[in-house]
Parts: sequence; C-alpha cells; structure tokens
Amino acid sequence: MFCDKDHPVILASASPRRRELIRLLDFPVQAEAAAGPEKITASSPWEAVEELAEQKARELADRYRGRTVIGADTVVAWQGRIFGKPGDAKTACAMLRLLQGQTHQVYTGVTLLSISPSGEEKQRTFHERTDVEVYPMTEEEIQAYVKTGEPMDKAGAYGIQGRFCLFVKAIRGDYLNVVGLPVARLYHELREWELL
Amino acid sequence: MFCDKDHPVILASASPRRRELIRLLDFPVQAEAAAGPEKITASSPWEAVEELAEQKARELADRYRGRTVIGADTVVAWQGRIFGKPGDAKTACAMLRLLQGQTHQVYTGVTLLSISPSGEEKQRTFHERTDVEVYPMTEEEIQAYVKTGEPMDKAGAYGIQGRFCLFVKAIRGDYLNVVGLPVARLYHELREWELL
Repeated sequence: MFCDKDHPVILASASPRRRELIRLLDFPVQAEAAAGPEKITASSPWEAVEELAEQKARELADRYRGRTVIGADTVVAWQGRIFGKPGDAKTACAMLRLLQGQTHQVYTGVTLLSISPSGEEKQRTFHERTDVEVYPMTEEEIQAYVKTGEPMDKAGAYGIQGRFCLFVKAIRGDYLNVVGLPVARLYHELREWELL
Repeated sequence: MFCDKDHPVILASASPRRRELIRLLDFPVQAEAAAGPEKITASSPWEAVEELAEQKARELADRYRGRTVIGADTVVAWQGRIFGKPGDAKTACAMLRLLQGQTHQVYTGVTLLSISPSGEEKQRTFHERTDVEVYPMTEEEIQAYVKTGEPMDKAGAYGIQGRFCLFVKAIRGDYLNVVGLPVARLYHELREWELL
C-alpha cells in the first residue's frame, strides 16, 4: 500500500468539510464524489453508516484499481430515528425541535478499501460514535438558526463548527467525528495499514 | 446593562483564539489585554482560573467604568498538577509526555463584570471543565508536533484545533472550552445578564 503525488489517496465524498478535514493527514488526496444511489438495508445507524461508507468506497476503488480509497458517511440518530440532510427549511426546523434539550448520537462510518488490478481486495471498515448534548432552544432561536442556511446540507440540520456551537452544551467522543470525519481514528487506522 | 457600537463589550484577553471565538456571539467587542501580574492564591485548577479571570476583568472594568467586561483564563490540569503555557520546546515535550495516553482536564474560568461610574458592581464568575483523552504518542510524534511551534503559547502545550487533533481520542464537555472560551455557556450566561 502506498500513495504519492502521482497516486493520491481517493476520498469518496462530496462533502466540503470532509475534503478540508482530510488535509490534516498531510498526504496527497484527490476527492471525488461517488455517483451511485445510496442503499441502506441496515436498520441501526452504525450499520447504516458503515454500509454507505463501503458503497461509496467500492464504487471508486473499482474505478481506480490499485489506489487506496476512503469512503465516509455521517448520520445523526435520536431515539432510534436516523436523521440525514433536511433538504428544506421546514424539515430542518422539525429536526431541531426534536434535538433541542436532548442528547443525540452522531455516527460516521469509514471504509478504507484498495482493489488491486487483479481484483485482490484489502478492506477495513469502522465507525465512530459521538454523543451530543444540545441546550434547550426557543422557537425563535431555531428559526433564526435555520435562516442562516447552515442546516440544509448537514445531517441532523446543524453544523457544530458553525453558529450552532452556541447551542451545544457538551459532547462525549471525537469532535471532528461530528463535523464529518473522525480524523484521529483515521490517522491511527491508516498507520496500521502502513499508509502513514 | 447594554452594549452597542459606541460601547462595545470589553474582552480582557490577549489570546487570538479567544478574540476570534467571541465573535460568534455577534455583538460589538473590543479586545484588550490586562497588564497586571497574574496572582494565583488558589490551589485547585477551577479556583485558579476563576481567580485569574476575575483579576483580568477587574483591571479593565475599573478602567472602563459602565462597560461590560469579560475576563477569561484557561489551564490544563493532570493529576493535581496545573499546566500553563510551556514557554519553550523542552517544557512542551515534557508536558506532552505526561499528557499522552492519559485523560486530563481543561478548565476555563470566565468573569462577567461591570462597575458603574459610582462604583456599583455587577459580577458573575463561572468555570467550565472538559475532559480530554489523548492517544498514546511516540517520542517521534511528540517531537514533530512540538516542532510545528503550535504548543508554545497554549496551556498544556497543545492546540486541539490544530494538528494535535490527530492525537485527541475523545473529549467530554464543551469543545470550544478547550480552544479557550466556553462560548455556548457564555451565550447563555449573557442572556441571563440580559446583555443578549
């Protein structure tokens, strides 16, 4: 397993946050979004993010044989419900009304995958969980936050790294996992892969 | 209590991180470092940060009568020892050798203080604690991290928002408290003060 300027690691993700976070690992990376439809067959959030991470990684590993591909996916889970991106302001408000004053979980699944030209596979899939405790929010605070536009492209309708930080009382786990990529865990997993 | 463009809140701190974080609160702020010597009489880390936060706030509140002043101070504590800024590379390495593979505490003390022209005081002091679990680090990783120069001006010899994030396994509490200012708690305290 290796990577260099001519053979960068492929990050299978469209998320601008993830593309920025992976730069912390300080190796050549090429980011490319997987195109395939995302199919969830798992019912638990950690199985779902691992499944989606693997789907993304597999599509690009198959296209870029011999390269190391990193796939990742993040969801928010609360009382057995899985929250993805809200899509519109109304759904964003509804999600935030459920999350305010409560503790929820953020799961990011990550797959490291390399398929050799002859089809040999090397794979490692894992997930990180972070608990996030949100302050009670007034309806006015929810509406004002949704108006910033921040929630739209983010699982659970918030960005912890943005203005929503005012409403996060505490977390338990990795902070960057909530942003979208568990960089510390990934660094240590890649060292075990002897890529770092 | 009020603030506007002509009467901004005074942040009594020299820390560039803190000056950036307070902007999340979206009110006019003027940052100014307290000049006085920092005197710690307390032996516990939470009492020490509250004491230092109050000293900083008091100096500037006395200078700017009628204005709201926010003082803050952050320390790292591990097994009863208090770590401030390392000052030099040797001390930074020594601190990181103690913190790696362990869980330590980060305390930020905050004082809100306003002294009226006639000398009437309104004050509120609090602290936030965050537990930080650090991955085991090799001597090579410690040396390489210290060489980045990041540790020098930071309590405990690391910046969680910088390259050190690769070595943070998990936190319990507020992330921005570790960066240097518990912005979410501060937002809620200022609302109780009717400043927000």
